[in-house]
Amino acid sequence: MRAIYFENGKIDFVERDKPQLTSGEALLKVRLSGICNTDVELHKGYYGFAGVPGHEFVAEVEECPDRPELVGKRVVADINCPVGAFKGDHRHAPNRTVIGIVNHDGAFAEYLKAPAENLCVVADNVEDRAAVFAEPLAAGLEVSQQIHVTGDMRVMVLGDGKLGLLTALALKLYNPNVLLVGKHEDKLTIAAQQGVKIHCISDPEELTALSEKWDKFDLVVEATGSEKGINYALDFVRPEGTVVAKTTSHLPSSINLAKLVVDEISIVGSRCGDIALAMNVLEQGMIDVSGLIEAEYDFADFNDAFERAMGKGALKVLVRM
Amino acid sequence: MRAIYFENGKIDFVERDKPQLTSGEALLKVRLSGICNTDVELHKGYYGFAGVPGHEFVAEVEECPDRPELVGKRVVADINCPVGAFKGDHRHAPNRTVIGIVNHDGAFAEYLKAPAENLCVVADNVEDRAAVFAEPLAAGLEVSQQIHVTGDMRVMVLGDGKLGLLTALALKLYNPNVLLVGKHEDKLTIAAQQGVKIHCISDPEELTALSEKWDKFDLVVEATGSEKGINYALDFVRPEGTVVAKTTSHLPSSINLAKLVVDEISIVGSRCGDIALAMNVLEQGMIDVSGLIEAEYDFADFNDAFERAMGKGALKVLVRM
Repeated sequence: MRAIYFENGKIDFVERDKPQLTSGEALLKVRLSGICNTDVELHKGYYGFAGVPGHEFVAEVEECPDRPELVGKRVVADINCPVGAFKGDHRHAPNRTVIGIVNHDGAFAEYLKAPAENLCVVADNVEDRAAVFAEPLAAGLEVSQQIHVTGDMRVMVLGDGKLGLLTALALKLYNPNVLLVGKHEDKLTIAAQQGVKIHCISDPEELTALSEKWDKFDLVVEATGSEKGINYALDFVRPEGTVVAKTTSHLPSSINLAKLVVDEISIVGSRCGDIALAMNVLEQGMIDVSGLIEAEYDFADFNDAFERAMGKGALKVLVRM
Repeated sequence: MRAIYFENGKIDFVERDKPQLTSGEALLKVRLSGICNTDVELHKGYYGFAGVPGHEFVAEVEECPDRPELVGKRVVADINCPVGAFKGDHRHAPNRTVIGIVNHDGAFAEYLKAPAENLCVVADNVEDRAAVFAEPLAAGLEVSQQIHVTGDMRVMVLGDGKLGLLTALALKLYNPNVLLVGKHEDKLTIAAQQGVKIHCISDPEELTALSEKWDKFDLVVEATGSEKGINYALDFVRPEGTVVAKTTSHLPSSINLAKLVVDEISIVGSRCGDIALAMNVLEQGMIDVSGLIEAEYDFADFNDAFERAMGKGALKVLVRM
């Protein structure tokens, strides 16, 4: 089969055998995949990654000895694959592999494998171009799984990238007044069209003045993608409020913890969430993700697709097998 | 009356009028006060402080128009004094003064004033030398007010200073296996004598190796007093676990938020707590604070007392009026 291979900042098409299944695994034929900012980071080599990336995908089940009823179905998959016995939340199993990210070849290939129990069937009314958002939408929904979000809270999302948009749309399900702040009028509009309140700035420096002018927020989600974003988020949150951190930068953040201590603020790290919940949201039509698609490319044009995805401010670039 | 005045790194004895009460306030005659590391920080001028410090004290109520039944009683006081109307937790009222810290003369004086509703009567069986710990003990107990601490959790306190000791003793009420890690065998022993498990290191660098060897903790309280402490705490906490930050350094901390995000760790800022709860713990004899007393000085010898308190690793220095 054909696959994409990342190593040392290079992207190669390689010829590989189909994945060999071990106990409990399913063979998946990729239909559509999405390029994530994490893929861009993996490509840059920040995490010493070498392998087949791709962790956002819709695939058809080709073999699945443990759940034979899934064969022929379209599925998405939780990307965290525990290895061996573990206790607690499988997403954080200490010896897990992570599809397309950690020791598990991903979806920028004709085939991949995944644990049968990680699969989630895509309902007939959800097309591939929506289902492929299940993984990043689950990451957006994760905030409301971690924090008790109520309708009367003041909620803000900082950053209008893909994750910021999806998180704002996800929080809108729980809070009618969620405010999305970002630098791109066109992107903010995507969220505004589904009822999210928006505020456009032209420079992050404006945030300091805004934080002094506006009432404080109960919950601020930091999804700027910059290691400096956390400090802006801390400016906007009220005492005893919560900042949810979504940004995974390879650079450290410089944080004044004295303010956090005196004001008893919490910073909650938040990563990927419940893919079945995301599929339910898509199936019920509660969120329309179509506005987040930048472009769709054939797999043969992966290099062009990836270049487009690396473009500053690019929305979701999809790759069709 | 005589009072201590801090300004620009200087300590002066000054002569002042007794505090003038406004509506809702009580006049308190100080009996015993404690010197806190925060006083040392105020003295160094990090926060531009100029005034009468002192926020740990036992006093006798001399005037209290709103609660006349308190006159003649020994009391401690919540140090957060809201100014004007506010909503929510009075400890975080936006316009509050803070006794001995923010715009409110403190207890290193013959008299001070406090809102009548902030007062908490000291039970007859609690002597001054225990009651004076109510404020810092409340800060230690605050952790278990913020986090749902259960007996089967793995709990660690990092730092064997006064706040670390009090926090470990406080958490011991909720968790039988709380582990206190610090650099001073003699201080750790104070906690060990009340059943806290201890581990002594000779250098913070040892923590990195320990964090790789030990099972991870559900809850790590960072009370090292160093801006670097948070990074050690993050090394010891499990995915989805909590680090409680107690250190208020004037230096920023450099934090790798990617780890926090990927492992969905929370950092919870924690300051002062419920002084009535602390008084109850002392009244019930649940914690013995006597081992934390370094020395007691007369008010006339305040300079000697403060010098002793500034000594590296000093325990609680008390000042008797």
